[in-house]
Amino acid sequence: MDCHKIIEDTYAHILSKENKGAVATYIPELGKVDPAHFGVCLTTNDGTQYTAGDAYSPFSIQSIAKVLSLSLALSLEDTMIWQRLDVEPSGSAFNSLVQLESENGIPRNPLINAGAIVVCDILCSHLKDPKKELIGYIRDVANNDTIQYSETIAQSEKSNGYLNVALVNFMKSFGNIKNDVEQVIDLYFYLSSIEMTCCQLSKTFGFLANGGKQLITNKQILTRSQSQRVNAIMQTCGFYDEAGEFAYKVGLPGKSGVGGGIVAVLPNSYSISVWSPKLNEKGNSYRGMKFLQLFTDTTRETIF
Amino acid sequence: MDCHKIIEDTYAHILSKENKGAVATYIPELGKVDPAHFGVCLTTNDGTQYTAGDAYSPFSIQSIAKVLSLSLALSLEDTMIWQRLDVEPSGSAFNSLVQLESENGIPRNPLINAGAIVVCDILCSHLKDPKKELIGYIRDVANNDTIQYSETIAQSEKSNGYLNVALVNFMKSFGNIKNDVEQVIDLYFYLSSIEMTCCQLSKTFGFLANGGKQLITNKQILTRSQSQRVNAIMQTCGFYDEAGEFAYKVGLPGKSGVGGGIVAVLPNSYSISVWSPKLNEKGNSYRGMKFLQLFTDTTRETIF
Amino acid sequence: MDCHKIIEDTYAHILSKENKGAVATYIPELGKVDPAHFGVCLTTNDGTQYTAGDAYSPFSIQSIAKVLSLSLALSLEDTMIWQRLDVEPSGSAFNSLVQLESENGIPRNPLINAGAIVVCDILCSHLKDPKKELIGYIRDVANNDTIQYSETIAQSEKSNGYLNVALVNFMKSFGNIKNDVEQVIDLYFYLSSIEMTCCQLSKTFGFLANGGKQLITNKQILTRSQSQRVNAIMQTCGFYDEAGEFAYKVGLPGKSGVGGGIVAVLPNSYSISVWSPKLNEKGNSYRGMKFLQLFTDTTRETIF
Amino acid sequence: MDCHKIIEDTYAHILSKENKGAVATYIPELGKVDPAHFGVCLTTNDGTQYTAGDAYSPFSIQSIAKVLSLSLALSLEDTMIWQRLDVEPSGSAFNSLVQLESENGIPRNPLINAGAIVVCDILCSHLKDPKKELIGYIRDVANNDTIQYSETIAQSEKSNGYLNVALVNFMKSFGNIKNDVEQVIDLYFYLSSIEMTCCQLSKTFGFLANGGKQLITNKQILTRSQSQRVNAIMQTCGFYDEAGEFAYKVGLPGKSGVGGGIVAVLPNSYSISVWSPKLNEKGNSYRGMKFLQLFTDTTRETIF
Repeated sequence: MDCHKIIEDTYAHILSKENKGAVATYIPELGKVDPAHFGVCLTTNDGTQYTAGDAYSPFSIQSIAKVLSLSLALSLEDTMIWQRLDVEPSGSAFNSLVQLESENGIPRNPLINAGAIVVCDILCSHLKDPKKELIGYIRDVANNDTIQYSETIAQSEKSNGYLNVALVNFMKSFGNIKNDVEQVIDLYFYLSSIEMTCCQLSKTFGFLANGGKQLITNKQILTRSQSQRVNAIMQTCGFYDEAGEFAYKVGLPGKSGVGGGIVAVLPNSYSISVWSPKLNEKGNSYRGMKFLQLFTDTTRETIF
Repeated sequence: MDCHKIIEDTYAHILSKENKGAVATYIPELGKVDPAHFGVCLTTNDGTQYTAGDAYSPFSIQSIAKVLSLSLALSLEDTMIWQRLDVEPSGSAFNSLVQLESENGIPRNPLINAGAIVVCDILCSHLKDPKKELIGYIRDVANNDTIQYSETIAQSEKSNGYLNVALVNFMKSFGNIKNDVEQVIDLYFYLSSIEMTCCQLSKTFGFLANGGKQLITNKQILTRSQSQRVNAIMQTCGFYDEAGEFAYKVGLPGKSGVGGGIVAVLPNSYSISVWSPKLNEKGNSYRGMKFLQLFTDTTRETIF
Repeated sequence: MDCHKIIEDTYAHILSKENKGAVATYIPELGKVDPAHFGVCLTTNDGTQYTAGDAYSPFSIQSIAKVLSLSLALSLEDTMIWQRLDVEPSGSAFNSLVQLESENGIPRNPLINAGAIVVCDILCSHLKDPKKELIGYIRDVANNDTIQYSETIAQSEKSNGYLNVALVNFMKSFGNIKNDVEQVIDLYFYLSSIEMTCCQLSKTFGFLANGGKQLITNKQILTRSQSQRVNAIMQTCGFYDEAGEFAYKVGLPGKSGVGGGIVAVLPNSYSISVWSPKLNEKGNSYRGMKFLQLFTDTTRETIF
Repeated sequence: MDCHKIIEDTYAHILSKENKGAVATYIPELGKVDPAHFGVCLTTNDGTQYTAGDAYSPFSIQSIAKVLSLSLALSLEDTMIWQRLDVEPSGSAFNSLVQLESENGIPRNPLINAGAIVVCDILCSHLKDPKKELIGYIRDVANNDTIQYSETIAQSEKSNGYLNVALVNFMKSFGNIKNDVEQVIDLYFYLSSIEMTCCQLSKTFGFLANGGKQLITNKQILTRSQSQRVNAIMQTCGFYDEAGEFAYKVGLPGKSGVGGGIVAVLPNSYSISVWSPKLNEKGNSYRGMKFLQLFTDTTRETIF
């Protein structure tokens, strides 16, 4: 396929249509982003990048970073993490306490807030300086030493994070948080504050399209099997209550964030990222979803 | 890969292990099946079949047939069916009324009981003699005129189907059933009674591994896009509350039935069926799940 | 207190205010009622009646009759009925299947639909001709041979009763219905069709204000203890999701129906009925609630 | 009735039976209490007290104190508090987050933990030194300057109160907590730590049996109407998921605590307290429930 042309045409088509939805405002910092931003970057497994629009502007990747903390936890504990987490789709809003209550504090999967908080707790049990070592790991995966937490976003998360503070305390009451709640939630807030550009993001996620190996360097980030399993989790759990819709309409494993970013991979082929801040009613980037749907409609290649 | 040897070795390994779980007894007829049955059949896209064990014994495919009624509904109405059904994982037991209540009678997907009943209602609106035309369609897809309903199973379903009668009446109270409840539920009970052998089943599902085309004849059962989307739905919704686990451990789109059958496909490659009547606590074939997990662990090929 | 004057003044005051809400339309027959009807009757334990407005017009008492079928079941089985029913407030809408699902088919109390259906099932196990014997019992309690089922309402309930058919089948699937579902639900639909005037209704419920004894005749309908317990159930469960509000604002045990009727009792003192067809958003008579609140605000006598 | 003899006989009878259930252990301090304690005190509206057993030993009244903080909030804001609280039975466990989630952070009533936390928030908005002024109010109501918080219990609550910290943060995320979460939850933990003897407790609650007036002094603690309404709330919401059962079997408004205390009132007549630390499976004192049931069975006087 002529990747360059398809990316450009798809981008132009989506750009010509109305930009619906609303920018996330649950933390003030996110609400300040210009809703007109729209960027795309596809990185093939040989490292070639195809871009369109604001592919080089950094944005808050938010929940997308949950895939990276999960990867680190898998590296540290492998399947042992599933004693404290499930791998099932959540079937309801991303921060539901109902589910936790009916399932005794075991989050349904590592990509909902509660699950990512348990992953942070696992990291706190293994790392001496969790905040520092987590960003170090992400820089390694990204092969880019400039990736960093946004102190502003992290503080904004903290000042508005009552729901997440409720979640960590709720799970602590079930005994599913081993470390100090303050330390765990602090790591979680910083995890949520990471910024990347579309190009950095699609390159970082390249290892999930490449059997667990970093693009170009072939450094093994995860085993092939672990990499397949992270993709399986993204597939079933990566889009809140729109996971089925995304599987149905796009057909690629992926993960979205409330900052308007989405990353998705076609195993053995490419990793693609899209960024557009306005979210649809399910909390996923409106244009990001439209772009990826049209893109895979055109290429006709999905995992299915 | 040496498919023949992998099938045989995997079969032998699983057979050597304890056969856990319990045969479904919610209808007496299912309870009469010998729990020692264990059969496998893999059909590659060129039509070659690899078998092991009881691959030629007919069994009740139960909910697996829901994929075929869905295919027929997609042929008749295409995406219009999504006005009355969702495509999201159900996140709870396969017959939950809670979900229907909180979502105004719209089933979360076409592979849970409630969703399959709505699909039957859609078929009733299109077909003059729904029962006859549905089995005719399935024979066409299977390219096999001997496939039939089991009158015994259908009657057994009817005499014990209070929960499904509750479901159809509940959805009727929300206006999401258009035809007479008796007619709709009768079609549903017959749909659930279809019997196939492992070989018939994997051959029948071959079109979903083949871009929508029947194996060998290349007759288009569904469009390529529809076929990908049926696979996406099986992937996210095919295993009740174990869909995520199946994606994680097996990594193929598939569908199970309480008769102990499972069918799964690797797009562009093969369709595989397993049958072993004992079910794990989530209601999926215990040995079927174990077999497929070991099989894809060995082949290392999944959709991810 | 000057009961006559308080009734008249309260009636006049409520009549002078806007008549808010909407007549129930879930069955067409109820929708035909003139929303302007408004009647009241208070019957003291010595048999004296004080009336205002349409106190002599018959109306569909609907769910209020559930208290009478419960009384009959208590006469037949006493506390044994609690093996199949609970006595807790339902805490959600009156016909919730969620609750039944999470509590294995045991209705939370005998005054929600599911509970009243179980009571009908209990009656079917004891009575040769349940429909005939139930109306016979109610005539006895009312000391009035003219009380009858409305064939029109019963048929209207039947043609629109998908939700109740769902409920009875759902409970049958849990084993909590012993008789044929058709027979049980038929009795339930007839139970829901009974008509009374305000004066008949308050007189009929007089035994619950009189330690279980029929007014004037002193015939023992229930034991004193049973009568106190029926009052306790009305108190905690008689007003759907407005039970707490009614306790808080009115402070009398009572029961409402979607026909716009309400009956309440002050033990050792009186029984009062109000009828006004427009319902508030919780499904209780708008004017009925307002009347009773103002009435007990004025008399300052409640059970609390 | 010969109150003295009934109390003694009932006490002796219950004491002769097995003492079932288990002492609450969710905070270590409660687990240290001798499970054999069993005390009773009935205070008639003229101030006479009838006692049996450990009526003069102090114990942790725990949730019973929620009625007193509610009384203070009603004194300060009267019905305005209902903008942030409901008055409906909770229909599920006493600390359910499910309910809060589905009802946007509005607790179902002021006697569940979430509701009592909102009441504490209301007090924080009105009082300069909430902790000091609350205990001052309670001493006034009790007419006893020795009533105090238990620092040990309060600290124990704090160290184990993850669930309550989750609740206050969860409600804050809905905007239903106006003050600093730390201050609000601190007040709540102290409220839960108050200790009284049976005699102090039944005397303190005497005003609710006396139209809102303190016994003997006739000081108006609440208006008659407010007092009736507090009784109505205790009646429908005072016993977690056993409120209906208590209404049914005992028939008095009351409130229990996990310390094993129960207080109940017969309006215009008496206030009675029982203390026995072992709890039944619903979290209410096993012997306390049995005692009160037998007591009202004997006196045959209930509000119904």
